[in-house]
Amino acid sequence: MEDLVIIGAGPAGLTAGLYAARARLKTVLLERLAPGGQVLSTDWVENYPGFPDGVSGFELVDRMKRQAEKFGIVIQSQEVSSLELTPDKKIVVTDKGNLETKALILACGAGYRKLGIEGEDFLTGKGVSYCGTCDGPFYRDLEVVAIGGGDTALEEALFLTRFASKVHLIHRRDELRAVKLLQDRVMAQEKINIIWDTIPTRIVGENGVDGIGLKNVKTGEESLLPVQGVFVFIGVIPNNQLAKGLLELDDRGFVVTNDYMETSLKGVFAAGDIRSKLLWQISTAVGEGATAAFAAEKYIEGF
Amino acid sequence: MEDLVIIGAGPAGLTAGLYAARARLKTVLLERLAPGGQVLSTDWVENYPGFPDGVSGFELVDRMKRQAEKFGIVIQSQEVSSLELTPDKKIVVTDKGNLETKALILACGAGYRKLGIEGEDFLTGKGVSYCGTCDGPFYRDLEVVAIGGGDTALEEALFLTRFASKVHLIHRRDELRAVKLLQDRVMAQEKINIIWDTIPTRIVGENGVDGIGLKNVKTGEESLLPVQGVFVFIGVIPNNQLAKGLLELDDRGFVVTNDYMETSLKGVFAAGDIRSKLLWQISTAVGEGATAAFAAEKYIEGF
Repeated sequence: MEDLVIIGAGPAGLTAGLYAARARLKTVLLERLAPGGQVLSTDWVENYPGFPDGVSGFELVDRMKRQAEKFGIVIQSQEVSSLELTPDKKIVVTDKGNLETKALILACGAGYRKLGIEGEDFLTGKGVSYCGTCDGPFYRDLEVVAIGGGDTALEEALFLTRFASKVHLIHRRDELRAVKLLQDRVMAQEKINIIWDTIPTRIVGENGVDGIGLKNVKTGEESLLPVQGVFVFIGVIPNNQLAKGLLELDDRGFVVTNDYMETSLKGVFAAGDIRSKLLWQISTAVGEGATAAFAAEKYIEGF
Repeated sequence: MEDLVIIGAGPAGLTAGLYAARARLKTVLLERLAPGGQVLSTDWVENYPGFPDGVSGFELVDRMKRQAEKFGIVIQSQEVSSLELTPDKKIVVTDKGNLETKALILACGAGYRKLGIEGEDFLTGKGVSYCGTCDGPFYRDLEVVAIGGGDTALEEALFLTRFASKVHLIHRRDELRAVKLLQDRVMAQEKINIIWDTIPTRIVGENGVDGIGLKNVKTGEESLLPVQGVFVFIGVIPNNQLAKGLLELDDRGFVVTNDYMETSLKGVFAAGDIRSKLLWQISTAVGEGATAAFAAEKYIEGF
């Protein structure tokens, strides 16, 4: 019987692991692939506090991993196939067997919805981004595209105008989905150029983005727009497969918790990008990981 | 008119400043003394994620400060005497004049209640601690005292038994204030030795703690107990002077917020140790600072 099983070894899971191991809970941290989570696809992180010159996503996660391991956390490479959760018993079913645990932290993260076009994966972190707050400031006085038509896409496009010289908003329809207030602002912002009825076809570049291929869905006309940045805002998908049907989710599928990171089921906690919240960042993930581990400890102690 | 005024330059305020400045909000960060907050009194931090070998409190805060300044934050040394807050207008009254701002983040921190005895200040961070979660693991196989009789003191004393060889619980009365469950556990834990009717008189040591002077309040008898660590759990005092009468506080005086760091007054946010929450740590402070800045940005934008 474990005290605590943590699923996912991104910043939230690694921090939960650090706190749990340091508090001497008998803890297992499970990760499907290599530790790191989404951060691994982040080339350069300049807004995680403590690194004035910035740090690569890879190095930051490696540092967090080494730190957690220093306190004795065991990271196991196992795919979790399902959870059997009742208030009295918690079983984690993996490809290598079952683990019974007193408490559980879900830190499975989330993934950005991708365009699925040529050049996208290769240039992610090198000019292709899914987060304005994270990467917008890298594009000062450069020309970028923002792709999407929902609230987030328009908010992010407006945010990008603080840095970029020009923001082309690419939308596949001839009207936007976003709320009217945002539409009005986008229309009034002279740095934003809306390109209607258009889908991206490929992203071009070697060491960075040089341009984006576009296709007008009404005329079929194709073109190449030279830009230095491609921001994709077409949705975020929480990795909630394990939680579905067991825990309360919000309308976008993120796990609902209270301020103590408690989910709708006693003894089950969530932290990081899988959690329903305002801001998905490394800085928020670590705080939630720490809080979840602390709350799990109190739960196990019976407080 | 400022976009945002942040009061307090500990990890929460500095992170809020980093995010706000990076998002190009016109932001002023006010700090009474030097930036740093409580972290400055922390000799060594080993549980802030990203520093596998640990980092001194001073260096960590200096790194956060330089990082925020890199994005253009202005840190001003000003004492805030009061706030004039209405939903429509926010005035920060300082010793150098008034600042009007659209949004406000309170990150004024908290302080531990001190014993006020000889040696305490001098040895803080060198054997005297106010936080078991932070410093307990440094005392593996050492002998420590825990001072206090409330829930926190007993929870922390129990936590310390995971590391220390012996925990002497010093209490000035002949009965504990804590809930019965905790009392039972403390009584049953053989590593804990309760010393009743006793107050500490002085802490002895040069580079670390060598012992603590004790006085029995009933007999007047004085003694010196040789220990390597002194943990003081007699209360935490939020720096809530500015918030009193303006914002909702919890029964211990911490500022109540929702998950978006919004206080009871629109446009006013709180982050870090001043906030009512489960876990007061650097890792939680930075996430709250980031969220508060992001929420303030949305508030200013009218979303």
